[in-house]
This record gives sequence, C-alpha cells and structure tokens, in this order.
Amino acid sequence: MHRLSFALLAASFAASASANTAVYNANVSEAEVLAAQSAWCNALVAINKAGEDQGHAAAKQLAGDVIDAAYGYNLGPVLFKPTLAAPPQTFRTTREGALAYFVGGDPNFKDDSGFALKGWTACRAENAAIHINGDVATSMGNVMITGKDGAVTTVDKTWTFKKSDDGKLRIVVHHSSLPYSAP
Amino acid sequence: MHRLSFALLAASFAASASANTAVYNANVSEAEVLAAQSAWCNALVAINKAGEDQGHAAAKQLAGDVIDAAYGYNLGPVLFKPTLAAPPQTFRTTREGALAYFVGGDPNFKDDSGFALKGWTACRAENAAIHINGDVATSMGNVMITGKDGAVTTVDKTWTFKKSDDGKLRIVVHHSSLPYSAP
Amino acid sequence: MHRLSFALLAASFAASASANTAVYNANVSEAEVLAAQSAWCNALVAINKAGEDQGHAAAKQLAGDVIDAAYGYNLGPVLFKPTLAAPPQTFRTTREGALAYFVGGDPNFKDDSGFALKGWTACRAENAAIHINGDVATSMGNVMITGKDGAVTTVDKTWTFKKSDDGKLRIVVHHSSLPYSAP
Amino acid sequence: MHRLSFALLAASFAASASANTAVYNANVSEAEVLAAQSAWCNALVAINKAGEDQGHAAAKQLAGDVIDAAYGYNLGPVLFKPTLAAPPQTFRTTREGALAYFVGGDPNFKDDSGFALKGWTACRAENAAIHINGDVATSMGNVMITGKDGAVTTVDKTWTFKKSDDGKLRIVVHHSSLPYSAP
Repeated sequence: MHRLSFALLAASFAASASANTAVYNANVSEAEVLAAQSAWCNALVAINKAGEDQGHAAAKQLAGDVIDAAYGYNLGPVLFKPTLAAPPQTFRTTREGALAYFVGGDPNFKDDSGFALKGWTACRAENAAIHINGDVATSMGNVMITGKDGAVTTVDKTWTFKKSDDGKLRIVVHHSSLPYSAP
Repeated sequence: MHRLSFALLAASFAASASANTAVYNANVSEAEVLAAQSAWCNALVAINKAGEDQGHAAAKQLAGDVIDAAYGYNLGPVLFKPTLAAPPQTFRTTREGALAYFVGGDPNFKDDSGFALKGWTACRAENAAIHINGDVATSMGNVMITGKDGAVTTVDKTWTFKKSDDGKLRIVVHHSSLPYSAP
Repeated sequence: MHRLSFALLAASFAASASANTAVYNANVSEAEVLAAQSAWCNALVAINKAGEDQGHAAAKQLAGDVIDAAYGYNLGPVLFKPTLAAPPQTFRTTREGALAYFVGGDPNFKDDSGFALKGWTACRAENAAIHINGDVATSMGNVMITGKDGAVTTVDKTWTFKKSDDGKLRIVVHHSSLPYSAP
Repeated sequence: MHRLSFALLAASFAASASANTAVYNANVSEAEVLAAQSAWCNALVAINKAGEDQGHAAAKQLAGDVIDAAYGYNLGPVLFKPTLAAPPQTFRTTREGALAYFVGGDPNFKDDSGFALKGWTACRAENAAIHINGDVATSMGNVMITGKDGAVTTVDKTWTFKKSDDGKLRIVVHHSSLPYSAP
C-alpha cells in the first residue's frame, strides 16, 4: 500500500494573505526590540542633557517620564538590577527605586548618585542573541555608553520587553552588570 | 521649564537588525496560519482520494497521519467540534474521536459515516479575521469544500493553531458548523 | 562509571515559596475562565430583563456596557460568530455588529432581531475541555439557556478569553452554533 | 434610567470547576520556577561532587546531561551570561560554550577553568521578584553558593525558564554577575 505523506501535502501549498482579513497581533517583533533599545539609549543621553542644561529637577522629571513610558511598573514589580546598584539595595522592583538610581537625591537610596547624570553623550546596544516569546522578548548583549571625555563604558545587559495592550513595549526585566575581569 | 518628550525620543531612532544576532522566535505568523489552513484543506481532499483509489484502510492510515501531524492530541485534549458531529458525541477531545469522525467505521462512534470520504475534490479557506497571540493563532471564517458533483458546501470554521517546540503548527481548537438559516 | 541522573536531582527538591517575593503573573487560570463564562451568562439574562423592565433603550445601553467590559473590541477585531447570525453577515468582527446581534434595531444589520431579548431567564455553561495558553484560554462545550416558557436551548460554544493588562478577561473569539442534527 | 453594571454582574458569580472538563495548561507556575531553581543548585553541587569522586570525565558527562535537561539549547540560542565569563567570550549562546564554562578543558574557551568544579557544597536561591508570562517565567535575585571552606559567594542572577511541550522547564535566559561594589 502506498502511504501518502501529510508533510508533502502541507509543503505543496503556498500561503497567500487575504486583503480583507482583519488581523490582531499581540506579538513582539525583532524590529520593535531594536527600536526599544534605541529609545532607552537615547533617553539616557537626554536625561543627562536635561540635567546639564536645565538642572536636576528637569532631569528628574524626564527620568520619571521615561520610567513611566518605558518600564512596566504599571503592570507590577519590575525585575531591575541596575549596573551600579549594590547590596542591600541591589534590586529595584519599584518605580521609586528606579528613579533614585537614574537621578539620585532620594534619601531612601543614599548610595545612588544618579547614574543617568554622569555625562553620557552617546549610547548603543549590540546584541548577542534575542529570544522572542509571544508578547515578551529578551535581548542579551553589550551596551556601550560614551562619557564626556569620550571614554566608552561597556556593560553586559539583559532586557525583557513586554508589549502592552496599547501596542507599546515596556521593560519588565533589566539586568545590567560590569564585565567580569579575572583578578 | 521645557518638558522633554520620551515618545519623541523613541520615534527618532530607526531600528537596524544586526547580522550577527542569534534570534529565537516562538511566535506564529499570519503566513504560517494560512499555510496550515491550506494543508488541512489539501489533506481532506487527499484522504478522500486515498479512499477512492486505495480503499478504506489507506484512507484511515492517511487520516491518522494527518491527525498526528496537524492536530495537538500529543499535547493534550483538543477542543474539536466537527461540522456534523451530534449529541451526545459532539466534542472530539481525543484522537480516537477525531479519526472516527474523518473516516468512520468505529463502533464507539456509530453515527460517524466518515466526513472525509464524502467525495471532496477541492477545499479552500476564506478568513474573516485572525487573532495572533504568541505561539497560538486563531482564524475564523468560511471554508468552502467542493463535492464530486461540483456543489460547494460552505461551513463556518474557527481554528486555533499552536506552534510546537519543533516549529510546526498544530490544531488545538477546531469549531466547525453549518451556516444558520432562519426557519 | 556511574552516571548521575539530572532528573533525579531535580525531583529530590521540594519547592518552597518565599513570602517576600514580588510576583507578577499575566496568565489566565481555569477559575477565571469559569467566572467569565458565568458573567457572560448572567449578562445575557440581565439584558433581557432590562428590556422587559425598562425598555429597549435600557437593554441596548446595558448590552453596550457588557460588550465594552467583556469583549476585546478595544484590542482589535473580535472573532465572533453568533449562534443565529447568517450570511452575508455571519461574522461580527466589530462592536457595531455585536451590539446589533444582541439587541437588534440596527438598519445595517436588518436580519438581527435581538438575540438577548428573547426572554431568557437562566443560562449556564458546561465545558467539554479548556485550553489555557498564557494570557489566553479557550473553552469549548455547551451553553444551556432557558426561555420564558422553561424550554432549554442548547448551543455548541467556543470562547477564547484574553487577560488584559488590567487583569480582566475579555472575549476575543466566540463561535456559537446550534447542534447538528442529521437530516 | 437605571444603568445596570456589568462589573457587578460578573462579581456576583462564583466559579465552580467541572470534574469532567479536560484541561490543557501550557503555563508556568511559581512552584515550577522554584523547583527549577533548586534543581539547578543541586546540579551545580552534584557536578562538583562527580568531579571530586569520579574525575573530570564524569563531571563533564553530568554537566552535559544537566545542560541538555535544564537549558533550552535544543530550542535555539540560549541567552547565557555566566558569572565569570569575560570578553571576548562573555555570552554563551551555544551548548559548547555552556559546557566549557561549567567544566573547562575546552581549547576553544581557554579562559574557562570550570566554574562547577570549584568545590561547591551547597547552593540556594533567594528571589527578589518573579515575572510569569505564559510559558516563560523570569526570576531575579541572589544565589548563594557555599565553597569547601564554608565561605559563601553571592551572585546576582536572572533566569528565564520556558516550559517545553513535554511540560518541563528549560533555562532560555541566564544572566549572572558578581555584586557591584563601589571602588
């Protein structure tokens, strides 16, 4: 008896999209991940510039806007381990902790001097790999940030972005660390 | 004080994909949904032809292969309401019930005469809308199947496909019904 | 050489939840699906009662509220095939089409006489199977609705609920059909 | 006109699970995350013990088994930044890179001395927060590993686990770093 192959049947058909089909798509694309990374980088530089040009209050205002637009604290706790956050306040699962890290000046986070205010003039991401899974996507790689003197600081960074109901990506996981160097 | 806009910052960056980035993507695309629909249609016609050319055993063998390749009974119960399945065996959550529906001949499903063996010569789907959500995607619309005499039967059909770990789509929900006509 | 088993290692540990861990969970539970089904049933009876007690405008107002709260038209097209909707308006992917189906009176949907206004006094769901996949879950089974005279109408129904960012479930797929009966 | 509230209707119903309903659930639970963390910890200690008791080949064999069972290299690239991995081999997106990190001895990864073979006798995780999203869940927190001399090393660790079709969790993201200490 000849046994027909379902796999061959499937392969013999080409897909053709219907122009009239209404499509809802909750998924994250790679392009959206790259755009969100660029937005984060740009925001970091902008917060620094706001501080230099307009003072700390302006930088704090912008940092708060960035956190509200780009992080998922409105959804719940965010898994945020900033590059320079140290014990016992390593993890910043609340908006307050994130804001303190970026601009400092919060008596509840005394070790925070304001990471975003350290003179950054440029920032870019270079991904090692991206993992896309439904409405969340994770990137891992390096982020290179350039200081006022032109020196480049490289960090190891993992971001998970979640697409909200409004179609916008928000950071729900952010683990950043300085590269290891053998002692 | 001038208030900077994070949204504008985000928009000012164009995304550029890195050639070196390894990407894993678990999501279903619209093209994959359309291809899976075509494969289902083609399989229906092929099962009928196997029955005509080679007899019932060959049709049953192919139908089993199709179910194993195209439905998600390996994952768990499938939410399958076939077009002509009637109470008390309306829902075919097991592989056995699906096979009985397609080719009949199962004493446990005495009302099943073998839907796939009714002389179908062509089949195509026309979608009203598609809902893509991670590794599952649902289509709703009409499926038109052509009988031996050229008459076309139209059914209302909802399919949910889930992408397996192996990257292949499987039907996990299938609700098919004859169009309503006012009495 | 003795080969250690990773599976055994994994099994030898019991999980213990930490009281201090902040948890975000986007997933749908079976209990949430059952509650959403009950809410739909209750809403159907309430719309009918609003029509009887307060007139068509009140019923239409409530039906609109129900659609806005319980369906996902705010997210995008909803895959809605109502029980008694017939060609060429079988699929109601817009809010307007859903509202017309439930309460009638829309000149754009002339065949709609108002399904929710047919004297329903009770409604309950009986599931054949449930498929939970992230923030969406699909149920398939029967829904029994009782008319004014006590007669029970049984329909075959598939619902997919999606959990919104606000934690509430919304219907994004709804395929309802009368049971098949052999001619 | 009295306006009825859909929210109240929804709230007035209690959910009751049906004993006969077949349920498929692809989602990860918090308990599964905790169990997977414990399994990872236990495996680390076991690999060390295999090396001490049976030699490097046994440790390498077990490490390979652990990677195959507990990581998602079978699905695609894994986003793995091990604690002590340094440029230019910081990210271990392939199985080969993970194995080299755990047991060393790979000429392609000359800086790897075998992290799992450093005398670990105990290991436990302490989560700051967990983010559950469909079939993936991410934990962030500290992991404490005890060396031969009783000294405890604490690392900052992010893990994302993905539930495979077979119901088992696999690590698809793993970012580990030494705590930051101000210079």
